[in-house]
Amino acid sequence: MYAQGYFAYDSKKSGGLTVSHLRFGKSPIQSSYLIDHADFVACHNPSYVTRYDVAEGIKEGGVLLLNSEWTLEQMECELPAAMKNIIAKKHLKFYNIDAIAIAREVGMGNRINTIMQSAFFKLANIIPVEDAVSFMKAAAKKSYEKKGDAVVQMNYAAIDAGLTGLKQINYPDSWATTTEGAAPIATTTDKYFGAFIKPVLAQSGDKLPVSSFTPDGFVPTATTQYEKRGIAVDVPQWIKENCIQCNQCSLVCPHAVIRPFLVGEGEQVPDTFETIPATGKELAGYKFRIQISPLDCTGCGNCADVCPAKNKALTMVPLTSVLEREEKNWETAQKLSDKKVELNPATVKGSQFKKPLFEFSGACAGCGETPYIKTVTQLYGDRMVIANATGCTSIYGGSAPTCPYCVNEKGHGPAWANSLFEDNAEFGYGINLATNHRREKLADVVRKLIAVEYVDDAVKAVGTEWLDNMNDAEGSKAASAKLLEACKEGLDMTGTEWEAEWLKNGKVCTCDACALAKEVLDNADLLVKKSIWIFGGDGWAYDIGYGGLDHVLAMNEDVNVLVLDTEVYSNTGGQSSKATPTGSVAKFAAAGKRTKKKDLGMMAMSYGYVYVAQVSMGANQNQWLKALTEAEAYKGPSLIIAYAPCINHGINMGKSQAEAKRAVEAGYWPLYRYNPDLADQGKNPFVLDSKEAKADYQDFIRSEVRYASLQKQFPQAAEELFNRAEKEAKEKYDYYKKLNDLQ
Amino acid sequence: MYAQGYFAYDSKKSGGLTVSHLRFGKSPIQSSYLIDHADFVACHNPSYVTRYDVAEGIKEGGVLLLNSEWTLEQMECELPAAMKNIIAKKHLKFYNIDAIAIAREVGMGNRINTIMQSAFFKLANIIPVEDAVSFMKAAAKKSYEKKGDAVVQMNYAAIDAGLTGLKQINYPDSWATTTEGAAPIATTTDKYFGAFIKPVLAQSGDKLPVSSFTPDGFVPTATTQYEKRGIAVDVPQWIKENCIQCNQCSLVCPHAVIRPFLVGEGEQVPDTFETIPATGKELAGYKFRIQISPLDCTGCGNCADVCPAKNKALTMVPLTSVLEREEKNWETAQKLSDKKVELNPATVKGSQFKKPLFEFSGACAGCGETPYIKTVTQLYGDRMVIANATGCTSIYGGSAPTCPYCVNEKGHGPAWANSLFEDNAEFGYGINLATNHRREKLADVVRKLIAVEYVDDAVKAVGTEWLDNMNDAEGSKAASAKLLEACKEGLDMTGTEWEAEWLKNGKVCTCDACALAKEVLDNADLLVKKSIWIFGGDGWAYDIGYGGLDHVLAMNEDVNVLVLDTEVYSNTGGQSSKATPTGSVAKFAAAGKRTKKKDLGMMAMSYGYVYVAQVSMGANQNQWLKALTEAEAYKGPSLIIAYAPCINHGINMGKSQAEAKRAVEAGYWPLYRYNPDLADQGKNPFVLDSKEAKADYQDFIRSEVRYASLQKQFPQAAEELFNRAEKEAKEKYDYYKKLNDLQ
Repeated sequence: MYAQGYFAYDSKKSGGLTVSHLRFGKSPIQSSYLIDHADFVACHNPSYVTRYDVAEGIKEGGVLLLNSEWTLEQMECELPAAMKNIIAKKHLKFYNIDAIAIAREVGMGNRINTIMQSAFFKLANIIPVEDAVSFMKAAAKKSYEKKGDAVVQMNYAAIDAGLTGLKQINYPDSWATTTEGAAPIATTTDKYFGAFIKPVLAQSGDKLPVSSFTPDGFVPTATTQYEKRGIAVDVPQWIKENCIQCNQCSLVCPHAVIRPFLVGEGEQVPDTFETIPATGKELAGYKFRIQISPLDCTGCGNCADVCPAKNKALTMVPLTSVLEREEKNWETAQKLSDKKVELNPATVKGSQFKKPLFEFSGACAGCGETPYIKTVTQLYGDRMVIANATGCTSIYGGSAPTCPYCVNEKGHGPAWANSLFEDNAEFGYGINLATNHRREKLADVVRKLIAVEYVDDAVKAVGTEWLDNMNDAEGSKAASAKLLEACKEGLDMTGTEWEAEWLKNGKVCTCDACALAKEVLDNADLLVKKSIWIFGGDGWAYDIGYGGLDHVLAMNEDVNVLVLDTEVYSNTGGQSSKATPTGSVAKFAAAGKRTKKKDLGMMAMSYGYVYVAQVSMGANQNQWLKALTEAEAYKGPSLIIAYAPCINHGINMGKSQAEAKRAVEAGYWPLYRYNPDLADQGKNPFVLDSKEAKADYQDFIRSEVRYASLQKQFPQAAEELFNRAEKEAKEKYDYYKKLNDLQ
Repeated sequence: MYAQGYFAYDSKKSGGLTVSHLRFGKSPIQSSYLIDHADFVACHNPSYVTRYDVAEGIKEGGVLLLNSEWTLEQMECELPAAMKNIIAKKHLKFYNIDAIAIAREVGMGNRINTIMQSAFFKLANIIPVEDAVSFMKAAAKKSYEKKGDAVVQMNYAAIDAGLTGLKQINYPDSWATTTEGAAPIATTTDKYFGAFIKPVLAQSGDKLPVSSFTPDGFVPTATTQYEKRGIAVDVPQWIKENCIQCNQCSLVCPHAVIRPFLVGEGEQVPDTFETIPATGKELAGYKFRIQISPLDCTGCGNCADVCPAKNKALTMVPLTSVLEREEKNWETAQKLSDKKVELNPATVKGSQFKKPLFEFSGACAGCGETPYIKTVTQLYGDRMVIANATGCTSIYGGSAPTCPYCVNEKGHGPAWANSLFEDNAEFGYGINLATNHRREKLADVVRKLIAVEYVDDAVKAVGTEWLDNMNDAEGSKAASAKLLEACKEGLDMTGTEWEAEWLKNGKVCTCDACALAKEVLDNADLLVKKSIWIFGGDGWAYDIGYGGLDHVLAMNEDVNVLVLDTEVYSNTGGQSSKATPTGSVAKFAAAGKRTKKKDLGMMAMSYGYVYVAQVSMGANQNQWLKALTEAEAYKGPSLIIAYAPCINHGINMGKSQAEAKRAVEAGYWPLYRYNPDLADQGKNPFVLDSKEAKADYQDFIRSEVRYASLQKQFPQAAEELFNRAEKEAKEKYDYYKKLNDLQ
C-alpha cells in the first residue's frame, strides 16, 4: 500500500485552515496535483459549511463525513442549500459524528483528531478497519505510555468511539433541489471583498483570473474586519460593577478586539449596551463601556488576566453564550461618534481611547508582538509608513487576501509594505529618503505659491505656517488642514471677476498661483509630517538584517525601528538567532545555546546619536509608552527592542503579558532608555528603568519549556548553562547600573 | 576631430604600468579593440625597454619616441637586440627625449607628463603643433594660476622644452640584424615563472592559452621575488657606525625590503657585506647587518624616518649609486643560514629576525597597512591561513601573476585566499570550521593508531603527546615533528621480520597500524595548530561585510580578524565608510562627513568574549606586538583594528609611520586592548594604552588634505565639524578612561 499527502494551509497563525489531500493505492503515487475528484471528504469543523464549499469535487456516490452536533432537523437550517443539493444529486453516503461531544465524554477536551481518524478508517475503507484500529492503538500506546495508563486508555476509548459514534444521515430526496438553508457568510457588500477577498478566503483563490489582481501592487487595507472568523471557544465578558476604567485590557489585547468606548450625552444606544459613568475630569458627562468583538476574538484571555481590579472586571465565558448580543453591541459601538477627549495619549488610559489602526490580525492567540504594534498605530497610525521585514510581523501584517492595518474616521491609516527579510532597514530608510525629498519639493512649491505677488495674505500666512511647522507632527497637521482649505478656496473663482473665463475653461485657471495651489492639492498626502517605522523580529534585527540595520541607524536620519524580540526566528518555527540567550533550546541549538544573547541595544548606543530603549509591556506599560513617545519625538534614528512572549517559548499564551512581567522581575530582561537628547542637555543619556531582580532567575527560565526541555534532556549541560546564564544576566544588569550611575 | 582612449593597467599600487591606446580621426571612432597597428608609440620609462616589447605592433615607417638619458652609443648596449631589429627593419622614425633632465631643469622634479605631452603633439601631428601648444598653455594657466605665476611659467617652460628637447636618432642599418644589446629581465629559471608570470608581467597575458592555467585554482606563492621592479628613485643606505640594532626600520618597511641579518662565526661573506658585532647576550658571537633589496624597494623612506639613532643609521641615496653592490649583498644575505636565536619574537627586535612571509607586494610606497600584515606573517606565517576581503589587501596580496606571500626555509608559509568583499568573515569562519573538523578526524586516526596493541610504546608516547598538544601552537609543532618521524619509521620494515613480505608488496604493509600511520602522513599538513586570520579594510569590516563579521565574532570560535583601517574605501579611490570620521572629506562625503566614526571595537566588546584591540604601529610598536600575540593566543574570536595611513589621507607617505604616531598623540586614535581572559581572572578586561592627548587635535587633522580640503572649500562647515570632531574624540577618550577605571 502506498500513500501520498499534500497539505494546503492558509497563513493564519491562530484558527487556520488545513486541507489534507490524501491518496492511497497499491502502486506508487506520483500525481503532482491536488485532488479534484474525491471518494471521501471529511469536514472536521461545522462552521466550515458556510465558509467553504466542503463537498466540492466529491464523486458521485462518494462518502461525506461531517463533524457536528446537528440532527437531521437542525441540518435543514444549518447546512447551506448548495451543499444539500450536491449531497442529494450525487447520492452521497452522508455521515455525521459529534466528535466534540465524544471528546469531552472520553476526557480529551477539545481534541477530536483521534476520533476523526478512526471514523475515517471505518468509512474510507483503505485497510481493514480492525487492522487500522490495532495500528492506531499500538501507536497511542507508544506515544502515551510514559504519561500513564489513564491517557492510553482515554485514547483507546476515543478510537473506539470514532467507530461507534458515526451516524448515517438519511437525507430526503428534496435536498437535490432545495433552495432553503444557511446563508454563506457575507459581511460586506464591498466590491473588493466580493471579487477578491471572499474567493481567496473560501480557498478558491487559485481560480481567480489574473485580471482580478491590480498590476500596481496596491491592496486596500482595513479588510480583516470582514473575516469574522469566530475561532474563540471562550471570550471575555465585562462585569461593569468591577471595572476601574484603567483600559489595560484594551492595551494588551493582541487582536484589538476589546476596547473602551464613550457614549456622549445625546447618543442613543440599545439597553443591552450597558455603560457606567466615565471617571476622570476629562471624561465628565460621558458614559463608559468595555466592548468586545466576539467573532474577532481568539479567546486568549490576557485581557482578563491583566485586569487589576480587586474583583476582576472581565471573565471568560463561552462564545456561544454571548455571541448574538455582543455582535450587536459591537455594531453599536462602531457607530458611536469619535470623541475628541483631552486625555494624554501617552498614558495607558489615554492611548486606548484612540482607535487601533491594526486589528483582527491572524497572529497567534496571546501573541506578545501585536500589542506593541497596535499601540504604535494608536498614537501615530494616521501619519505612519511602515517598512516590514519578512517574518511573523509580515505574515499577520499583510498576507493576502486581507490586511489588518486599517483607517480612522478620516480614512487615514498606516501605509504598509514588506520587501525582503534581509533589506528591511534599507527599505524603510529609502522610504524616508523619498518622503523627505518629495516633501522638500512640495515646500518649494509652497514657497513659490506664497511668493506670488497677487496671492491673498491669508494664503501667505497659512503657507508660512505650514513651512514653519512642516517637520512637526501636530503643527503640520493643523497647518495642513488650513493650507488645503485655502488652496481649495483659491481655485474656486465663483463670484470673482474671473468666473466667466474660469467656467469657459472647464473650471481651470492657469495662472501661476492656481497652478501652484493645484500642485499642493495634488500632493496633499505629503503635507503632514510622516512617522517612518521599520518593523521586524530578532532574526532580522540581530542576524540577517543586522548589517543593514546598523548602517541605517548610523545614517542619523529620523526613522524609528521596532524590534519584536521573541529570541528565536518565530515565523519559521523557532530557530536560534543571536538574540537567543545562553541555555535556551531552539532549532540549531538543540543542546542549549552556548553563546550569550547579543546586546543589540548596547551596540546601537555606541553611536551616541541613536535613541535606544528596551521595553516589556507586560512589566511596565508606562515605560513602554514613554519609550515609544520619546523614540517617535527624537529627530534621529530610534531603536526599540520589545520583549515578546511567543508560542515558541513553551508558555501559557493566555498569560503572555504576565510572563513578560516575570522576565523583568527575574532580571532576565532589563528595561532602559538611552536618549541622546539628554546628553545634549549635559545629562546622562542612559536611564535604567527596571530594578534589581526580585525573583529568582532560574525559577523563571525553568518554568518555560524552551529552557525546561534542556533540563530534561541534558541535565548536566542545563545546570552549567543556566548558572552561566544567571551570572551573565547579573553582570549585564550590573554594567547597566554602572552606566546609569555615570556622571 | 574625434578621439578615443582605452587605458590598460596592471594592479600595482606603486610603480604600475599604464598603456594608453589612443585613436584620433575626423569621423566618430567606435573601435572596441586595443590598438595593434600603431602610427606612433611612446615609451615614457627607459626601464621598460627590457621588460616589455615596447615597439610591438608599430607600423612600417611609424614614429617611436623614447624617454631616456641615453646617447646613441649608450643605446647600443641599453636597448635589447629585438627592439633594435624592429626599429631598423620597419624603418621607424626614432626619437629620444631626456624628459627627466628637462623636468629637473625647469623645476618640475620628476613630473615628465607635460613634457612628454608636448613632444607627442609635435611628433604625432594630430593637430597643428602651434594649436596644441596654445591649448596646453591655456589649460596649464587655468589649472595652476591659483598657485601663482611661477608655477604657470614652469609649465609653459616644460611645454616648450618638450618641443625643443626632441632628438631624432640616426640609428645604423646594422640594427636590422644585430644580436647585441641589453638582455631582457629574467631573474629565475622557475618553470611557472617562465610559462605564466613572465608573459603576464610583460603585458602578454592575453596571449596565454587557456591550458596554461591550472583548473584547481591553486597558484604558487613566493613569486614577487622574481619581479625585481626597480621602481625606487632613492633607496636607504645603512651607516653601520650609527646603528643601534633596534630593527625598527625592518618592522615598519611596507615591502619587507630592509631586514636585519646575522652572520655566524663560520660563515664567509664578501668584503662589501660589512657587518658590526651583534649586541645583546642572545646574539653573542654573531655579526649584524642591515641589508636592503634595492630592486624591491619603493623608496618611501619610512625606514630612515623612524630610525631612532642619535645620528640616523639610514640615509636615502639614489638607487643607481648602490644598485650593483647591494644586489650582490642581498644575494649574499639570502644565502646565509637560518639562525635560531633565543630572542623573544613578541618584541620589536626579536620579531625582525624572523623571516617576513609577505614581501615585495605591489602596495603603495609608504603603505600603512602592509607592515601590520608582514608582522603577523613573521610571528605566525608558518602555520597561518588567511581569508582576505576584496580591497587593497587582496590587490597587493594576491593579484595575478605574482603572490607576495612566501615561505620559510622549510617551505612553510601562509595559505591565502580571497573570496568576495561581503562574505570574508564567513569565508574565514568556514575555513576554521573545516580545519577543526579535519583535525578532529585526524585526532581520531591518531587515537586509533595508539590503541593498536602491537604498536611501539614510543609511537604511543608521541601520539599521546600530540593529542595533548594539538591545539597548542608550539606544543603541536614539537609533537608533530616527532609523530611524523615515528610514523615514517614505523612504515619502514627494513631489518624487521616482515621485510621480505613488505618488499614483495612494493613497500606497502596493510596491517591496521601501518594503514593508520600512512593516514597520519597523508594529513601531515593538519598536524600543527593553524592560526586562522581574516584580513580586510574598513569598507569591509565597518560596512559591507559587517553583518557577517558581527555574526562570526558572535560564534565564539578561534579566529583572528585584522582590520586595516584607512577610514575610507581605499582600493576604489577613497569613498566614505562608517569608519570615516566627522569632518573628513571623502567620496560621497564631499562636504565633510556629517556622522561620527562608528566604534567597531566597542560594538565587538559588547559580546564580552571577543578579544578587541585598537593599535597604531607608528605610535606604539610594542602595544601592537602585545595586542597581536594576545589576540593570537586567545582561544576565542579576536579583532584588531589597526590605524593605517593611506594615500587617500593626503599626507607625506614617506612619513606614514610618523603620521600614525601623531594620530595617537593628538587623541585622534586611542589605543586599547580588551582581553576576556582578564575578566575570567576577575580583572578589568579593558586596558587603555594611550595617554590623554598631548598634541592639538585640530592641528593634526588640519595637516591632512582629507580635512584641510574641507577648510579650503567650506570654511564654515569645517569650523563646525572640526570642533564637533574634537569634542567627540574627547568624549570617546573620557568614556574609554571610565571603562579603564571601572572596578
